[in-house]
Amino acid sequence: MDKQKDIKPWETVSSKYLIQRPWLTARRDVLRMPDGKLVPEYYVLEYPTWVNIIAITTEGKYLLVRQYRHALGIVEYELCAGTMDAKDATPLDAAKRELLEETGYAGGEWTELTALSANPTSMNNLNHTFIAKGVEKVSSQHLDETEEITVHLFTLQELIDLLRRDEMKQSLMVAPLWRYIAENHLL
Amino acid sequence: MDKQKDIKPWETVSSKYLIQRPWLTARRDVLRMPDGKLVPEYYVLEYPTWVNIIAITTEGKYLLVRQYRHALGIVEYELCAGTMDAKDATPLDAAKRELLEETGYAGGEWTELTALSANPTSMNNLNHTFIAKGVEKVSSQHLDETEEITVHLFTLQELIDLLRRDEMKQSLMVAPLWRYIAENHLL
Repeated sequence: MDKQKDIKPWETVSSKYLIQRPWLTARRDVLRMPDGKLVPEYYVLEYPTWVNIIAITTEGKYLLVRQYRHALGIVEYELCAGTMDAKDATPLDAAKRELLEETGYAGGEWTELTALSANPTSMNNLNHTFIAKGVEKVSSQHLDETEEITVHLFTLQELIDLLRRDEMKQSLMVAPLWRYIAENHLL
Repeated sequence: MDKQKDIKPWETVSSKYLIQRPWLTARRDVLRMPDGKLVPEYYVLEYPTWVNIIAITTEGKYLLVRQYRHALGIVEYELCAGTMDAKDATPLDAAKRELLEETGYAGGEWTELTALSANPTSMNNLNHTFIAKGVEKVSSQHLDETEEITVHLFTLQELIDLLRRDEMKQSLMVAPLWRYIAENHLL
């Protein structure tokens, strides 16, 4: 590609918060495009860093959680996931904490697979996906007051069948799972 | 799984819009969990149906677009994508329209691969991904006033390298691409 002509970032002219609550922070930016055109109303949603985990037990089972997702109105199987908070030094720390809290599993070998965005147009955060190989149950769940989560062990084939039936909807989980399957030639 | 004990949907007690603009519609719901606990502040973002396209030319090249994504502050390669609007009878119609408008390509054999959510916790819409095999350039781009998009042809290997370098961040695009790669044994 001719780098001279590459697309350039747009300039932020002004920025104003509409709402700043723990579960929704939204601002309206006024932007100027490189050709000078003004974009008077561009909305950005601010979120903390997110994490999720492809956790595989010592027996080779894939650890999924099941919960209600209200915006889409569905109960679905998902990867264990959560939000990085003040007590987490790194996304990896957040991922280990969330896996232990939501499932009671810990241990194993951890590597980061990918960092993706739910929507870079409107959301300012990334989600980091870790692979945790060889996790074991070490405690019971420790859920927040408004968390209602059950824990499930899937074989690889059951997980692939679930993905092929489009029953896991959350693209931040589906993307790293298909990458893991493709890169490890598991199909 | 014991279906008797499966997770149940939560009840919506009340719902109030905070903002209803073309690019941001947000409401605050009060929910009641199955055990009776109230969730006083649950935010839902409403969006129309989205579409994106894995478009492959008659020469076997993958059609990507490049544009600035302000929330994350990055310029990135993406699949051609867009929003279903009043003139589209189906997501497929929207996908064909967006491909023609953003890239000037049309034709080929179209199939739907998957329908995913950017985040079923907070967003109420789905994104449909189509595979379009054998598209050809039939016209110039027809962009909206605030669209600034360049069109690029990638070989399969260049596309896989891009994905492996985590340079495409949008999980609604990365997920179907890795699925397509895995299911067609392209790695």
